[in-house]
Amino acid sequence: MGVHSVFVKDAVRIPTRRAIVDLPDRQSFPTLTDVARAAGVSTATVSRCLNTSGKVSGATRERVMRAVETLGYTPNFGARALAAKRTFTIGAIIPTMENAIFARGLQAFQETLHDKGYTLLVSSTAYRPDREAEQIRTLVARGADGLLLIGYERDPEIYDFLRSRRVPVLLAWAHQTGNPHPAVGFDNRGAMAALTRAVLAHGHTAIAVISGILRGNDRASERLAGIRGVLQENGLDPHALPVIETAYDIDNGARAFATLMQACDRPTVVMCVNDVLAAGAMQQARAMGIAVPEEVSITGFDDIELARLVTPQLTTVHVPHRQMGSLAARELVRMVETKGEGVSHELQSALRLRASLGRRG
Amino acid sequence: MGVHSVFVKDAVRIPTRRAIVDLPDRQSFPTLTDVARAAGVSTATVSRCLNTSGKVSGATRERVMRAVETLGYTPNFGARALAAKRTFTIGAIIPTMENAIFARGLQAFQETLHDKGYTLLVSSTAYRPDREAEQIRTLVARGADGLLLIGYERDPEIYDFLRSRRVPVLLAWAHQTGNPHPAVGFDNRGAMAALTRAVLAHGHTAIAVISGILRGNDRASERLAGIRGVLQENGLDPHALPVIETAYDIDNGARAFATLMQACDRPTVVMCVNDVLAAGAMQQARAMGIAVPEEVSITGFDDIELARLVTPQLTTVHVPHRQMGSLAARELVRMVETKGEGVSHELQSALRLRASLGRRG
Repeated sequence: MGVHSVFVKDAVRIPTRRAIVDLPDRQSFPTLTDVARAAGVSTATVSRCLNTSGKVSGATRERVMRAVETLGYTPNFGARALAAKRTFTIGAIIPTMENAIFARGLQAFQETLHDKGYTLLVSSTAYRPDREAEQIRTLVARGADGLLLIGYERDPEIYDFLRSRRVPVLLAWAHQTGNPHPAVGFDNRGAMAALTRAVLAHGHTAIAVISGILRGNDRASERLAGIRGVLQENGLDPHALPVIETAYDIDNGARAFATLMQACDRPTVVMCVNDVLAAGAMQQARAMGIAVPEEVSITGFDDIELARLVTPQLTTVHVPHRQMGSLAARELVRMVETKGEGVSHELQSALRLRASLGRRG
Repeated sequence: MGVHSVFVKDAVRIPTRRAIVDLPDRQSFPTLTDVARAAGVSTATVSRCLNTSGKVSGATRERVMRAVETLGYTPNFGARALAAKRTFTIGAIIPTMENAIFARGLQAFQETLHDKGYTLLVSSTAYRPDREAEQIRTLVARGADGLLLIGYERDPEIYDFLRSRRVPVLLAWAHQTGNPHPAVGFDNRGAMAALTRAVLAHGHTAIAVISGILRGNDRASERLAGIRGVLQENGLDPHALPVIETAYDIDNGARAFATLMQACDRPTVVMCVNDVLAAGAMQQARAMGIAVPEEVSITGFDDIELARLVTPQLTTVHVPHRQMGSLAARELVRMVETKGEGVSHELQSALRLRASLGRRG
């Protein structure tokens, strides 16, 4: 314990080296004063221009903003952060950076944050809840003004922790009507139900599923529930549905497809819980000489770019990634700046019926 | 100015709400003391187990690590950060999250960092140097122990700023022999030169290039220089080479390809500076009814997953993304922990000759 009391004493000195509000280095970066001087106004006026809109006359505002641009002043730091007691940093924790599922939405999220003067820091969990908890605490410790998390399912302790720290949290990539957590997303179950109805309408009844790991992933569970619900509606046994659960990865999709097609009763359609698994299934079909969609149909979910790069193109569910990312940024910034409760927004997904889904006689 | 002095006074109170070292919430998360109690050792022993290796006997060490795992203790926080005066947070700033170019290497980087007890925070610049400068300052302000940046080319002021803050910086995705900045990467120019030699060996002389935006992107410039160098070596005019510069994006690749193929003198091979542009070119070739490789060959760079998902599969340069990410993590942690100079590592890329490159008579 002696060791630790020494460290605790040392700890109070840390902020002097790396202060939580890091003032710009005067030699390298322009200051608020530099901007004020260049624009011929007071620093308070510059501050008003950067922090609010409409309170400074058009001509002055324009002069200030021109000085900001010319000097390359970064309003995220120094005076602005002091004034607002904020860090202008938003954290997002996503399950993976390794495929494009979250990439496009996150890019839109970042663009909108940037327009509002916030910097985005991203962390990824490899779909492991323990890492998410660790990363949430890192981002809170680093002073994030707000957090974007994917989906609803996590230990209630984490929500308690975030509430106790008063860090606004918005969920994305999912929306469940009636769930109290603010979320900007779409109905994963309803979207997959709609795709399943289209699959049945194409004459298929022998369905198999390649799913992501369900534990801790409410998006995957909801999509699977969507398929089962429609089977039940149509008098098919939802529990007889073959489901292979595997981590989201092209090679895993390929392996799962091979397993399904080696069964005595081959499915006539393999529904994949996302496009990455479906791309793996398509690759494996080609390797096994199985014609898509003549011998087997394959469907995905997400409509990321590779859905249109594979041959034949993939039938999938289009998720409005950019709209979701941009709306989530606006909502989260609103929560941070007004200290208000978050408001949920449900976005609409849409079927994309392409050549990988064929008609079964 | 009155406004700001008030804020400055307030600012010193910020660390009490969000301390730079965020002690765990005792109600929600296990503490070092909990781990010590569970393992039947002192907290100092736990601390030694977590901070160093080899100084604690095997059996004790194992007991402590089992308690750490059972309780789900996160050594990133509390005692360990206090002891080391570090935040155990590493920042990486990449040009884009929107496609898979950096995804695989970054995932490996993160995995290795995690094994070493560090959390990764990522930021992306949309290939804009001004944003990179802003994000570097954000990550330094948030207390990152070290930074990973992509490529060499940036304002010298940024390197000065990082040196003045004593933040270790490692570069990746590029390696230039003789350049003093520590980097873990590969020779972009040499790799593209090797591919160009293979293209010439297939009988092509009518080459066109789809490049990324060259400004601020030394990887793209070096690759283009690699092509031009080999043309010169072979008595072809490097300045007559048609080059379309466009942002990395599938649709941009498609558009650039369409432009090249509408020219009177069609190229027999379109060399793309990365796989994303090449995938766009392949898509456009199909849309225009141009057979690949019979009528035109297409090559890429990176060997990301989509290189093998397109039909025909893409000839490209394989970048050892995972090896690079993992090695970069080890080197950067070494720099942070020893406060030593970084050591550069050059990795080898390799040609992947696939069906998209055909022989020209």
